[in-house]
Amino acid sequence: MKRIFIQETPKYVDKKIKIAGWVNIKRDHGKLVFVDIRDGSAMIQLVGGELLSGLRPQDVIEIVGLVQKRPLAMVNKNILTGKIEVAVQGLVVLSKAEELPFDMGQEDLNLELPTLLDWRPLSLRHPKVTAIFKVQETIISGFREVLKQDGFTEIQVPTIVPSATEGGAEVFRVKYFDKDAFLAQSPQMYKQIMVGVFERVFTLAHAYRAEPSVTTRHLTEYLSLDAEMGFIESFTEIMEEVEKTIRYVFQKLNKERAEELKMFGVTTPQLPEKIPQLKMRQAQQIIFERTNRDNRQEPDLEPEDEKEICRYALEKYGSELIFITHYPAKKRPFYTYPDPQDPEYTYSFDLLGRGLEWVTGGQRINDYQQLLKNIKEWGNKPEDFEIYLQAFKFGMPPEGGFALGAERITMQVLGLKNVREASLFPRDMERIDQRLSLLKAKIRQKKR
Amino acid sequence: MKRIFIQETPKYVDKKIKIAGWVNIKRDHGKLVFVDIRDGSAMIQLVGGELLSGLRPQDVIEIVGLVQKRPLAMVNKNILTGKIEVAVQGLVVLSKAEELPFDMGQEDLNLELPTLLDWRPLSLRHPKVTAIFKVQETIISGFREVLKQDGFTEIQVPTIVPSATEGGAEVFRVKYFDKDAFLAQSPQMYKQIMVGVFERVFTLAHAYRAEPSVTTRHLTEYLSLDAEMGFIESFTEIMEEVEKTIRYVFQKLNKERAEELKMFGVTTPQLPEKIPQLKMRQAQQIIFERTNRDNRQEPDLEPEDEKEICRYALEKYGSELIFITHYPAKKRPFYTYPDPQDPEYTYSFDLLGRGLEWVTGGQRINDYQQLLKNIKEWGNKPEDFEIYLQAFKFGMPPEGGFALGAERITMQVLGLKNVREASLFPRDMERIDQRLSLLKAKIRQKKR
Repeated sequence: MKRIFIQETPKYVDKKIKIAGWVNIKRDHGKLVFVDIRDGSAMIQLVGGELLSGLRPQDVIEIVGLVQKRPLAMVNKNILTGKIEVAVQGLVVLSKAEELPFDMGQEDLNLELPTLLDWRPLSLRHPKVTAIFKVQETIISGFREVLKQDGFTEIQVPTIVPSATEGGAEVFRVKYFDKDAFLAQSPQMYKQIMVGVFERVFTLAHAYRAEPSVTTRHLTEYLSLDAEMGFIESFTEIMEEVEKTIRYVFQKLNKERAEELKMFGVTTPQLPEKIPQLKMRQAQQIIFERTNRDNRQEPDLEPEDEKEICRYALEKYGSELIFITHYPAKKRPFYTYPDPQDPEYTYSFDLLGRGLEWVTGGQRINDYQQLLKNIKEWGNKPEDFEIYLQAFKFGMPPEGGFALGAERITMQVLGLKNVREASLFPRDMERIDQRLSLLKAKIRQKKR
Repeated sequence: MKRIFIQETPKYVDKKIKIAGWVNIKRDHGKLVFVDIRDGSAMIQLVGGELLSGLRPQDVIEIVGLVQKRPLAMVNKNILTGKIEVAVQGLVVLSKAEELPFDMGQEDLNLELPTLLDWRPLSLRHPKVTAIFKVQETIISGFREVLKQDGFTEIQVPTIVPSATEGGAEVFRVKYFDKDAFLAQSPQMYKQIMVGVFERVFTLAHAYRAEPSVTTRHLTEYLSLDAEMGFIESFTEIMEEVEKTIRYVFQKLNKERAEELKMFGVTTPQLPEKIPQLKMRQAQQIIFERTNRDNRQEPDLEPEDEKEICRYALEKYGSELIFITHYPAKKRPFYTYPDPQDPEYTYSFDLLGRGLEWVTGGQRINDYQQLLKNIKEWGNKPEDFEIYLQAFKFGMPPEGGFALGAERITMQVLGLKNVREASLFPRDMERIDQRLSLLKAKIRQKKR
């Protein structure tokens, strides 16, 4: 008999089936035992007698049984298989689980973050934790789909790089044979080079930041969703592509992940016809008028300002997202295109939502001489940018692009409190799977 | 007037259009000048007078002109736009290119590998080089598509790892704040852990090997296409999934990349109804009988053996691919499932083709105690596998999986001589974008 996935069971009412999966919960009523069993596709209730009473949560079992309708009083409309159950006729235990360190049967896990992460292979199996990564997969797939539809080519770029081009302090150093190399802080240079080849490109790239601080929204390794497009006629085309991308992703989430969004009691951000835009200086003026907090001379928005302008966007435009544009040149990377009307400011933008940055992007300088000049003015060495500059020597159209962090967006969509919850195996200053305080002890032991 | 992509031009015969792109070749016949212009979608011939004569290869231009049918004698049936051309009416130069270091106008680039790579941003724009990465994108998309159809979930796993679990010498060391970490040699442990969550998973993961040798088929950083599936009833199910995946990829290549395959004069591997299988010892016996070379006691196939058995598969079965199974336990990783009939051998396989390995895989040990025992027997420390072992403590079904290198497969499909040609920005012992001999000189200079 061929095993079927649990999501197919509703098609087999009154039929005998074979399914397999992990025991999620057992409810023992003496003569009658109920077990929720989970496979990669869905969960379903088993009903049986003594046969099931020896099972423990996370045991892996294979069962043969009859799909039957549940008594009306026991129907659960919230789940796919809520109207049926499987009356167990045969059971094989494929793998026994040890006793769990905590209860996995509750709707919320309610663990402290360090415990959640110390037991990651187990805690990831909790349906509400699993749901985070289903949502994440959908976000990533949506990003790919919409860009492919728009003629973008997916590229694969390296992460070991020869020099620390975007700020030296926050970069990880790799011992590369007898030399030094670094872990890329972003795929920026490579995606720009590839505009010269494919015109429109995107990449899913691991990015590394050696930020020596522990915050709720930073990881040392994260997945950057990066896109770049050539032959733009104006800087607003990039924002239009961002808006299209993000709307497509939200649509896909609502279509394919409604159940998961409901588990977290959230909706995708509310948006008007068009996402509103403000120049940074306009935003500061509005914040001043609303709060009397005068940051109008500051070169960037403070976290408090970002929250305030998001409140404003919701009140004024009914929008949970807002583009802030024209950041000062000195607060942006050397390659950012200056506004010809006012070169102290740039053709750059952030998309803010629910108090935080969701996307960042802008037009880039595509003129070789201007780029060379800026590299020097920003205190960098042109020889560290040899391969990057080469792309601009041999013809580069007006171009720009954007980037978003997969974990950050997942966190923001689901309203998670910490970005670590949106990374399967988060890395930070204190943890690489294990807590580093423990790891250090081990390394010391080895040296003795 | 809105710019259109060149691939759309055949729909605009006798109409005025705007297109933009890079000058590929210019043929100056005095009064009549022909220019091939390339954008991200395709290439087309422009025809004009003096207006075009100042152009250089790789200049970025935008033109307005009339799409017209070519004279019959000038039709080129091999390309999408070969029956038409654009009579130029207006030209804007968006970006001037410097003089090229080599001729980009020939059908083949014919550069030595170091030159090809020193000028990577430029050489990637050559249509035949670009074609390699269109083929690669299609291979990667195909891998994703077929596995998603089969219920696999795409996961994102980290590359910074706490210990060197798969052989200590060939691992890169990262300075991680005040501690040491490593770059993952494969996503193996994480994909297995995730079987406990999603049952079927795949990932596109960067993998790092500090192999201190320069060969034509190794990179220090490559893209590993990895899949893993739970609840297998036998080890052959994994090979069936491999066969399905690879056939799907070939089909997709033939459908979407026929033009690129033709440029390289290749076809996807010839396959019979079912890919043949041999146990490693059987293969050695056959090789002995065919060549009189007696490697029947060797624990693995030598490169010469792999070539010979591929010849055999083609002659005997009309197959350019062949599965070799049951490698000795001592030549495989500790987690490989031993054949219960003959535990010196394992439920492992390689898929060989055209003389090289294409895919590797097998069933894994899913019993916690057996895994723990093997970790020790292989000379490893269980505490380095803490998070991995945890997944097996809490219930793991029979499972297995496979992996293929994206660059390696691209090389094998296209018949490239060196895997570096199949990596946009290849890393090896001697190069990270720039040749490391040059980089070293720079680092020394800085220290002075």
